[in-house]
Amino acid sequence: MGGAEVSLEHLYKVFTMPEGQDSKLAQIEKHLSDNLADFLSQHVVTKVNSLEQIEKSFAEYAVPEAPEFVSKHAETLLEKLVANSVNTYSPTFIGHMTSALPYFHLPLAKLLVGLNQNLVKIETSKAFTPLERQVLGMMHELVYKQSSDFYSTYLHSANHALGAFCSGGTVANITALWVARNKALPATPQFQGIAQEGMAAGMMHHGYKRLGVISSKRGHYSLSKAVDILGLGRQQMLTIDCPTQTLSAEKALKVGKQYQQEGNKALSIVGIAGTTETGHIDPLDELADVAQELGCHFHVDAAWGGATLFSQQHNKLLKGIEKADSVTLDAHKQMYVPMGAGMVLFKDPNDSNAVRHHAQYILRAGSKDLGATTLEGSRNGMAMMVYASLHIFGRKGYELLINQSIQKAQLFAKMIEQHKEFELVTSPTLSLLTYRIVPEKVQSKLSKNPKIAHALNIELDKLTVAVQKRQREAGKSFVSRTRLQIEKYPEQSITVFRVVLANPLTTELDLQNILDEQVSIALETQTWLSLTT
Amino acid sequence: MGGAEVSLEHLYKVFTMPEGQDSKLAQIEKHLSDNLADFLSQHVVTKVNSLEQIEKSFAEYAVPEAPEFVSKHAETLLEKLVANSVNTYSPTFIGHMTSALPYFHLPLAKLLVGLNQNLVKIETSKAFTPLERQVLGMMHELVYKQSSDFYSTYLHSANHALGAFCSGGTVANITALWVARNKALPATPQFQGIAQEGMAAGMMHHGYKRLGVISSKRGHYSLSKAVDILGLGRQQMLTIDCPTQTLSAEKALKVGKQYQQEGNKALSIVGIAGTTETGHIDPLDELADVAQELGCHFHVDAAWGGATLFSQQHNKLLKGIEKADSVTLDAHKQMYVPMGAGMVLFKDPNDSNAVRHHAQYILRAGSKDLGATTLEGSRNGMAMMVYASLHIFGRKGYELLINQSIQKAQLFAKMIEQHKEFELVTSPTLSLLTYRIVPEKVQSKLSKNPKIAHALNIELDKLTVAVQKRQREAGKSFVSRTRLQIEKYPEQSITVFRVVLANPLTTELDLQNILDEQVSIALETQTWLSLTT
Repeated sequence: MGGAEVSLEHLYKVFTMPEGQDSKLAQIEKHLSDNLADFLSQHVVTKVNSLEQIEKSFAEYAVPEAPEFVSKHAETLLEKLVANSVNTYSPTFIGHMTSALPYFHLPLAKLLVGLNQNLVKIETSKAFTPLERQVLGMMHELVYKQSSDFYSTYLHSANHALGAFCSGGTVANITALWVARNKALPATPQFQGIAQEGMAAGMMHHGYKRLGVISSKRGHYSLSKAVDILGLGRQQMLTIDCPTQTLSAEKALKVGKQYQQEGNKALSIVGIAGTTETGHIDPLDELADVAQELGCHFHVDAAWGGATLFSQQHNKLLKGIEKADSVTLDAHKQMYVPMGAGMVLFKDPNDSNAVRHHAQYILRAGSKDLGATTLEGSRNGMAMMVYASLHIFGRKGYELLINQSIQKAQLFAKMIEQHKEFELVTSPTLSLLTYRIVPEKVQSKLSKNPKIAHALNIELDKLTVAVQKRQREAGKSFVSRTRLQIEKYPEQSITVFRVVLANPLTTELDLQNILDEQVSIALETQTWLSLTT
Repeated sequence: MGGAEVSLEHLYKVFTMPEGQDSKLAQIEKHLSDNLADFLSQHVVTKVNSLEQIEKSFAEYAVPEAPEFVSKHAETLLEKLVANSVNTYSPTFIGHMTSALPYFHLPLAKLLVGLNQNLVKIETSKAFTPLERQVLGMMHELVYKQSSDFYSTYLHSANHALGAFCSGGTVANITALWVARNKALPATPQFQGIAQEGMAAGMMHHGYKRLGVISSKRGHYSLSKAVDILGLGRQQMLTIDCPTQTLSAEKALKVGKQYQQEGNKALSIVGIAGTTETGHIDPLDELADVAQELGCHFHVDAAWGGATLFSQQHNKLLKGIEKADSVTLDAHKQMYVPMGAGMVLFKDPNDSNAVRHHAQYILRAGSKDLGATTLEGSRNGMAMMVYASLHIFGRKGYELLINQSIQKAQLFAKMIEQHKEFELVTSPTLSLLTYRIVPEKVQSKLSKNPKIAHALNIELDKLTVAVQKRQREAGKSFVSRTRLQIEKYPEQSITVFRVVLANPLTTELDLQNILDEQVSIALETQTWLSLTT
């Protein structure tokens, strides 16, 4: 294929010598630096291939025998991969939590790889270790606002950790519940603790039939992964119906009490600060009280909504988060850091010791090696991206970004409500909202009686699915879809468009165009025809 | 501080407009591109600050209020972070598994961030999903060499996975044992399976007192993390002494049989292909038979050694790996990919379904969303780096790299053996070896009698520790240290220098200089003096 020479001399060059400034890879770099939006519009989504078509070009299963020139391979990447990837930077890509990033992350990514530090041990990371601890400290202070004494004691303490940096919110949630589980089945004079003796022995020793986690139905599916991997079992994920999209503290208390009366132990209440589907925030303050009454851990999954704390206008939405024992935050969401920057924070710096790994000669006792209290082992220096962002935006910069995204969501909600062919389903708490397309003629019929509404909703679901798919395939814009149970139709879930207004560059005109496109797609469907005649 | 304007207009620019070509960040980029080695020698390890000193510059715990200019922050990063980081690219940094990377990863890292795909869902990754599956397929074929029919059936099957891409070997090992655990306590007509009902119920239903994992003492500490998180308990990590540095199949069988006779269940044998400490490879073929006899899972941790399969000269060292139920591989080790490219492979494409998450409207059934069978959720497109490396090096290129690193280790072993002041402790199987400094005068005394040897070893340990620390602090080169039990001194662990010859650019002269430096440091120690007089 490529015909590159198979010799050590050639390979050494691949390690040390960049090709010239006119090589393909250098051209790609320059284009990325000069005008990222232009690069993406020229190279991404240039082809409208189906997934099946794309899979055909990734079907070879044997490792290629011969080396290929870098420049030649760069062309292959552009043609086969980049052309068929997703333009997450587009202002009209408003269907998921992945969005445009500030440009400085591109050169920083290059620096990160050029340094290739490994955070598992201080010997392979040095200053990156205190930097990561500082980032965790800053986020800890944002949430918990402890004293200056507190941070000077714990920020760099070898025997404590204010949290753990991890690849994402899923690992953060698992880590939080791992800590909660190990604390719930602690050592006694007759028992060495669950970390040593395991789940079955721990539950028997402490006399619990089951351990369960309580959250609303809107809880992220990583919680189910957590109860599986931690050995609780998915049935012990006690999810509570939430037609209002938030967890009722009253219901949580009732479920928890009954669960415990049956000989079980509530391990943790999980409050959500920014649900994945609708962006709602659970009543954290009340849930903290419930957790206290049940005597269990209180975890807040603020992977999406945590950054709201930067805004003095909106931070009260998260009131009570400072009572959480642990908090998950994703810097790669509303902090605009590249993918791979999750964090879990612990109110009590001793908590991470519930999962500490002691190995005298690998992670030496008293060392500051971060691998001793994280789920992951070798990790890169992604904390540098968070550090840079915290400084380049500052709290005030993030505040502006958060405020404008919520304001834009409120504007979009108004646009939907005023439009005669749309129905707003959930209003924005943060910058998420859901809506659906409902032909004007159908709207009045919907409120007639439950039976008629039920039948109409099934047709409307089809309409939403058809419009969402075709809009995605057309490639101009992307809105996602999901199914929700809402107060208005307690017996029936409905399909809705889901919008995440994460990209600061999305304009009112973009939003108007998306609605217009949806109407024009809908008009061409059979369902619209049958619904309106 | 930075004085950047706090306005939305300014923030929009941070998203869209790179600063000019003469900005600090652009200068850093250019330097990285033009001559990475020169950049590192100019900016990394320019200061010999202690960790305590470095911590002082990362002590602020509050998020900065005001935004800072990117260029100004870039200078801060150089001064505070880069200057105090570790030069993992240096040919004389031979103490850990982190090494120089081929230069093409720098521009690719920029492309990765410029695309910011999220592999959890196909809607945010599109072609990256089949690409990742292809990479897993290529590595699967390298290990398992299944038929063309096999790969055309499973490579892109929505209901199967040949493995999981993950942030590193730790998550890969946990995932493998998670699958093994869920398969060991399966559903029956009276039991819905451990994933649903949890550990305690599963063990009771299947009648096991405990579940245990068998490996040698050289097993990576991620295995202990795994048995903790999975609820087995760290005491059920049955580690077997290995004075020869490899796991005896005979001992493993004996331990496993006795364990099962006591009413327990051996969950998995873990064979290691390239131990972290010495690079030894367990007798995989024999261990596969032991696993079969015990009726348990067989996992191979080939995080380090897996890449040896590229070499036709050395791949027989891993004979039997194709019998493993699961295999861990780290592309960020001997495949020279940036940190964050772990993989677990499953021989049986159905195995990943033991941990599959079903959630009708989040990860839609029948979709190819990768999040359904991975421990992690949102993930970046790191598989692109592995894909590019597989093509740019090709199997033959990797073969040359593997061969030269083993050859270099053998050369270094010879240099140590021939040197009168050193003792080779473990010979290289792969590109790792351990040795220690033993003054010539002391060498003859060591073999006199065990009591004398015991006392001398304690002094020699001190010498090795002192030399390793001072050499690291001097900053010219880095060799790590560890403690090992070896055949010669079965009653006593000894401290040794540990070398990983990962960097293809390390020369014979580099190695000679490292030995010379160690001797000259040793000569200045009090221990040397007392040992030799």
